[in-house]
Amino acid sequence: MTNFEEALTKTRQQVDTYLQSLIHAWQGRIPVRLSSAMAYSLMTPGKRFRPFLTLNFVELLGGVSHQALPVAAAIEMVHCYSLIHDDLPAMDNASLRRGQPTVHVKFDEATALLAGNSLLTEGLYLLSDTKTHSNPQTRLELIQGLLEASGGKGMMGGQMLDMESSTKFYSLSEIEHLQNLKTGAMIAFSCAAAGLIMHVQSSLLKNLEKYGYNLGLAYQIRDDLMDVESTALVVGKPVGQNQQAQKPTFVSLLGVEGARKKAEDLVEECLSLLESFGPKSDLLRSATLFVLHRAF
Amino acid sequence: MTNFEEALTKTRQQVDTYLQSLIHAWQGRIPVRLSSAMAYSLMTPGKRFRPFLTLNFVELLGGVSHQALPVAAAIEMVHCYSLIHDDLPAMDNASLRRGQPTVHVKFDEATALLAGNSLLTEGLYLLSDTKTHSNPQTRLELIQGLLEASGGKGMMGGQMLDMESSTKFYSLSEIEHLQNLKTGAMIAFSCAAAGLIMHVQSSLLKNLEKYGYNLGLAYQIRDDLMDVESTALVVGKPVGQNQQAQKPTFVSLLGVEGARKKAEDLVEECLSLLESFGPKSDLLRSATLFVLHRAF
Repeated sequence: MTNFEEALTKTRQQVDTYLQSLIHAWQGRIPVRLSSAMAYSLMTPGKRFRPFLTLNFVELLGGVSHQALPVAAAIEMVHCYSLIHDDLPAMDNASLRRGQPTVHVKFDEATALLAGNSLLTEGLYLLSDTKTHSNPQTRLELIQGLLEASGGKGMMGGQMLDMESSTKFYSLSEIEHLQNLKTGAMIAFSCAAAGLIMHVQSSLLKNLEKYGYNLGLAYQIRDDLMDVESTALVVGKPVGQNQQAQKPTFVSLLGVEGARKKAEDLVEECLSLLESFGPKSDLLRSATLFVLHRAF
Repeated sequence: MTNFEEALTKTRQQVDTYLQSLIHAWQGRIPVRLSSAMAYSLMTPGKRFRPFLTLNFVELLGGVSHQALPVAAAIEMVHCYSLIHDDLPAMDNASLRRGQPTVHVKFDEATALLAGNSLLTEGLYLLSDTKTHSNPQTRLELIQGLLEASGGKGMMGGQMLDMESSTKFYSLSEIEHLQNLKTGAMIAFSCAAAGLIMHVQSSLLKNLEKYGYNLGLAYQIRDDLMDVESTALVVGKPVGQNQQAQKPTFVSLLGVEGARKKAEDLVEECLSLLESFGPKSDLLRSATLFVLHRAF
């Protein structure tokens, strides 16, 4: 295992242990079926990449990553809320997530709806807690950041635009806007949250966000490329899902080479930004490059 | 019109105007289809009873109701979020709400899901805004209160228990618990929010909550009674919905007379509590009595 893979594993264990303690505290306070569905979603094996960003940016900025666990956990809870709702029959109608039955398949649709909603509110509540950060102003900034990233001006807005993308013509900048809202905003917040916790200057905060948006776009392009490349390489497998859904992508608009180049440029910019944040950025450099070579 | 009806109309106009200004500010920041669905839900004619409670309790406690408009609006937004999701096919599968097509009928299921979620986050964001209250600690308390009332430990938990009530045996105290979570928590928060805004002592805050829970239960019992009485009186109309769904209610557990007596006792307790809050409680007295005689 590389240092990065080791660090990713360590983060996952830290975050999972913390999430387990939260789940434990729900007993007797949230109805059993509801908390079971919430816990099922949270504990489906995931890479915890967003928490990884938050914890490692806190360290890079001179803090102790352990102190950022509540914020990292809140981000993962809101991420899981979005996955549960995204998988619902009215949305992507997915039956598998991370190799396991989705929440509405394992439980039922209504329970999945309520479990998603409850993960959102529990995640936000965590941010409001004194234990998360001693400064009330900082807690409010974290709450505002997460609300903006996850709501109509962020992730929900992106999902709306994505739903409409099969029937509307989108230009390259519109696709970028869509992806920035749909996945970029939450990744950008995962990075910016570290800056809020560490009370950095607004210019640095902006750059943390910029890093996150670039990384999110690079990831999305990589995803689009895999969708096409697996079609070309693996004969007999279903045709690329984007093409099937007639959704415009970076690949359909830029071509394979153009898309690959754009992803590389974005990652290059991420690496430059990293250098400006602090000297000990090796793990985050690996995480950035990881986006170009792996799917997650 | 009585003074109370006039006051209810005035509140509705104030709240509607304020909500319109919020909707206006979404332009260009939230995708059109999404913000249209959010606005459609918010602007479906409603009594705005929860905002009425918040605004009038602020006045009773010596404040200016106008200053509590953002909080009242946030409560209404979260109320509308719950109505949109409650009406979805996976939940109550309702096609009409307040006499108009429900959001998923007017738009589609996915849009309704996203619109509900976005109303929740916008409502919470409103509470985090400096304009809502100058004290950051108070804003955090309002956010925590709304999160607790609306999440797994409140409204979502109550909806989960309600879904299970067709197949499980519930005792009277379990039904009370279910209703306290499902509707009581949000009504209690509508009252307690006034206390948070006005920085009242914790004993008064508890009594404001108690008033809200009692009022919520009295309303629910009245609702159960109407379900039965309309069946008995109006021949040829569909049988009571609770009976159809085989859901235990206050009426099925206490009988018509017992349920009526319980509602009257709860309202009586509400009126005593009101007297302890302040001398100018006429409007709130009328609102309390209204629960026994009207459905809303």
